[in-house]
Amino acid sequence: MELVTISDIEAAAQRVRGVAVRTPLLLQTWDPRGTLWLKPESLQPVGAFKVRGAFNAIATLDDESRARGVIAYSSGNHAQAVAYAAQRYGVPAVIVVPDIAPRIKVEATRSYGAEVIEVPIGEHEAKAHELAAERRLTLVAPFDDAAVIAGQGTTGLEITEDLPDVEVVLVPVSGGGLAAGVGAAIKARAPHAKVIGVEPALAGDTAEGLRLGHRVDWPQADRARTIADGLRAQPSELTFAHLRKFVDAMVTVTEDEIRAAMRTLASKARLVAEPSGAVTTAAYLSHTAELPPGRTVAIVSGGNPDPAMFAEILAG
Amino acid sequence: MELVTISDIEAAAQRVRGVAVRTPLLLQTWDPRGTLWLKPESLQPVGAFKVRGAFNAIATLDDESRARGVIAYSSGNHAQAVAYAAQRYGVPAVIVVPDIAPRIKVEATRSYGAEVIEVPIGEHEAKAHELAAERRLTLVAPFDDAAVIAGQGTTGLEITEDLPDVEVVLVPVSGGGLAAGVGAAIKARAPHAKVIGVEPALAGDTAEGLRLGHRVDWPQADRARTIADGLRAQPSELTFAHLRKFVDAMVTVTEDEIRAAMRTLASKARLVAEPSGAVTTAAYLSHTAELPPGRTVAIVSGGNPDPAMFAEILAG
Repeated sequence: MELVTISDIEAAAQRVRGVAVRTPLLLQTWDPRGTLWLKPESLQPVGAFKVRGAFNAIATLDDESRARGVIAYSSGNHAQAVAYAAQRYGVPAVIVVPDIAPRIKVEATRSYGAEVIEVPIGEHEAKAHELAAERRLTLVAPFDDAAVIAGQGTTGLEITEDLPDVEVVLVPVSGGGLAAGVGAAIKARAPHAKVIGVEPALAGDTAEGLRLGHRVDWPQADRARTIADGLRAQPSELTFAHLRKFVDAMVTVTEDEIRAAMRTLASKARLVAEPSGAVTTAAYLSHTAELPPGRTVAIVSGGNPDPAMFAEILAG
Repeated sequence: MELVTISDIEAAAQRVRGVAVRTPLLLQTWDPRGTLWLKPESLQPVGAFKVRGAFNAIATLDDESRARGVIAYSSGNHAQAVAYAAQRYGVPAVIVVPDIAPRIKVEATRSYGAEVIEVPIGEHEAKAHELAAERRLTLVAPFDDAAVIAGQGTTGLEITEDLPDVEVVLVPVSGGGLAAGVGAAIKARAPHAKVIGVEPALAGDTAEGLRLGHRVDWPQADRARTIADGLRAQPSELTFAHLRKFVDAMVTVTEDEIRAAMRTLASKARLVAEPSGAVTTAAYLSHTAELPPGRTVAIVSGGNPDPAMFAEILAG
């Protein structure tokens, strides 16, 4: 299987420049170890790293495909990212969302000019494929796509530019697009650094899969137990192949550790993180013994918690 | 009176590079007008722009003064900024704080290796001057100091680098160090842009003073009414002279507008802002008719709200 290369990621970096935010690395001065930097992808447009992959996928389309438009399915940040990226490039976009998606996210997606189609939960992926064929739209997959992986990988490239002697990179794993791209970038540009994937224990399919050497399927109902709603997906064959090659170890975190990390990120790092964005900080704070020591970057992948849940977690 | 020049600010930019964060400008895609960029100084070490001035003031000391050490008085972010900057430069620091300062801030200041001296409220400024003379320490003033103003001005320089065609810059005004430095930078590098100072209406001494053409004193008890605890100070003659020259207009915001802006910053911009850091966003959202139209940068000056108050404001 052909994996994404550092050249693919460098080309993606040229394309996302000026549209994605060049997020800074934030040294955390409250940390007694003094070895934690955060990469706040929560500050991207739409509040997640997802815009990087969406921009790269849309930027690489030919003119004819751009004119016809793109389609995506998602209940989360990918929907808004594709809608936003399509708008920036003047490309029509259709987004298929499950009808249980929060109103606020549906409205945000619509505000970027996308046509939003709501279908019963469980049918949105199939509906997107159907519409893509019918209307000859290009499907922008959430992670199972080389251009998307290369786009997410620009996060890793920036880490090595800003902290060339980074020793540990903590990256959340769900479908694996971010971890695949970041792993490819880190292993090419800072090969001495360890890439550690982080999952909620309640959706720890990748930790188990990498231990066994092959993808495993966890029932959706099991994965749905975690509050980290952005980490309930599972890798595809393509992303899993990247993870096997580029990820040195996995750490799983508990729901309480995620909540505590969200509080710490708000009070100490002044960042609003969603549960999925807080798992890497949770690993750094609560699983020290499982991690290699040294200069560590934790990727804060997204900043869209449910507002009521966020207020409740902060209160305590 | 000699004002800070663009050369002073450019020299300061060289000094703070690598120690202060080069904060990005964040275009806010949820804003229907599409003209709002945030400058998140809340992401600096210690959570406020104050490190810029502290770094510049300490970096410009001669070796003998560095060896003797620095002293600062503050109940807020300036205390931590001086402690942190001194630690980074290996300079001893004494910080005088009022004994009513929140425990969490006193501990944070101490964690940066500073000697913290607590004195009754109202006596901390005098005590700092007394100790400075006694121990031959250099006083790093919170705003009434050209090196501090030049350091804060690097915020403005970065704005013009990242958005050369900026049209409006919204900056909070308290002692006026940030607005003085930012104003000097903007008027030199983007002279077409308007610099608008923002205050809580409950501490609107500068709006009144600029209207009258001279500094005015508001009773401390009046200024203490605002929740924006970082905006209760008043300009010195030095900062006021800068404000007269560089600030085009003042806007005052209500306490409810500040709270609403804090909620918007958390939910839409994914930033934890303290009340003082939210006043510029409050002006943009709630005082549109008083502002010139066009590409606007709102400086989010700090991110250290009282945690309980923050949770309460988010809950709504």
